Amino acid sequence: MWALRIKGVEYDYIEEDLRNKSNLLLECNPVHKKVPVLIYQGKPIAESDVILEFIDDVWKDLRYRILPEDPYECAMARFWSKFGLDKLSPPIWKWFTTQGKEQEDAYEAAMEQLLVLEKVLDEKKFFGGERIGFVDLSLGSLSYVIPIYEDITGVRLITSDKFPWLSAWMEGFLGLPLVKEHLLPLDKLRPSDLGKRFGLGFYLGA
Amino acid sequence: MWALRIKGVEYDYIEEDLRNKSNLLLECNPVHKKVPVLIYQGKPIAESDVILEFIDDVWKDLRYRILPEDPYECAMARFWSKFGLDKLSPPIWKWFTTQGKEQEDAYEAAMEQLLVLEKVLDEKKFFGGERIGFVDLSLGSLSYVIPIYEDITGVRLITSDKFPWLSAWMEGFLGLPLVKEHLLPLDKLRPSDLGKRFGLGFYLGA
Repeated sequence: MWALRIKGVEYDYIEEDLRNKSNLLLECNPVHKKVPVLIYQGKPIAESDVILEFIDDVWKDLRYRILPEDPYECAMARFWSKFGLDKLSPPIWKWFTTQGKEQEDAYEAAMEQLLVLEKVLDEKKFFGGERIGFVDLSLGSLSYVIPIYEDITGVRLITSDKFPWLSAWMEGFLGLPLVKEHLLPLDKLRPSDLGKRFGLGFYLGA
Repeated sequence: MWALRIKGVEYDYIEEDLRNKSNLLLECNPVHKKVPVLIYQGKPIAESDVILEFIDDVWKDLRYRILPEDPYECAMARFWSKFGLDKLSPPIWKWFTTQGKEQEDAYEAAMEQLLVLEKVLDEKKFFGGERIGFVDLSLGSLSYVIPIYEDITGVRLITSDKFPWLSAWMEGFLGLPLVKEHLLPLDKLRPSDLGKRFGLGFYLGA
């Protein structure tokens, strides 16, 4: 949604109850059975990073390019997006959904990867520089879910003393009108889910 | 290497001993400490799918495009490449490196994902159609390592009765001069590794 808003493309938003997946979702993404799915001219595209690239490709002349024009910068953006998905999100999710030793190990792993990212940001406002780009959009949901995980667990993962640039990035990203007007509808969470980590996680996974 | 050969780009090939990683590798890929790494004008790029996209971007006018020009076809190529990395390779690797119940489960999971891929190929010679493209290159190493895994375990994963198109694809891919002249140098495997699944796996992982 954020990428479509950057491009100024109109769209319909269909919400999915992931505990009771619609036939439309199962038909559009039979391999992963997950959201998001973008349906463009009747054809479905799944996987958030694939969707982001598609939006940038198909509306390449609208507003600005989400991926850098320079091939090397573009490769770096893809590298860090992939890093977020493969190396950073899994320990954060594990930290949130486990207990004891397993949780401690996941915490250490998450901190290690967050430090890597802190150095990538290195005094920049956004990963894309002065405006948000591919990496910001790809990692953007983390800026939203990490504070929720922190509230529920009562443990802070990203503190401004340890992660000054990541903290500023999260605040800056969430503060963008484009982003804050299109966050996941937390108020629609069933109250019974709030205490159930997995229930909440699944919903956020939408 | 296959992608560089498609583009007709000259390169130097530096082999890594992954049991004794060079400083060059550790400096070029400090995050993953893995091969392959492409060094272009002194700048390193890691992660095989990121490298493939970079090669296609930076030498976009040489020979033919590795990724489809059409944005939707391009999204599909990215989707299936990602599927190979995320959903297919892990159970195949697990099947090869575990025993008992764990191995049986991995076998089932691998077969399920291979069947998905068989349907994607659907009577095509290559995933890219008449010539190899992004998905072929991305999954290409499987055509090479699966028969080796099969030889070592004595179990066939891809039989021509269950997977007629995948079998034909593997044979077709490995038969291309471009590919067969640039396979990993199996003859350089230390004899002592042949019996050690992990040793072999690591080397092939290079």
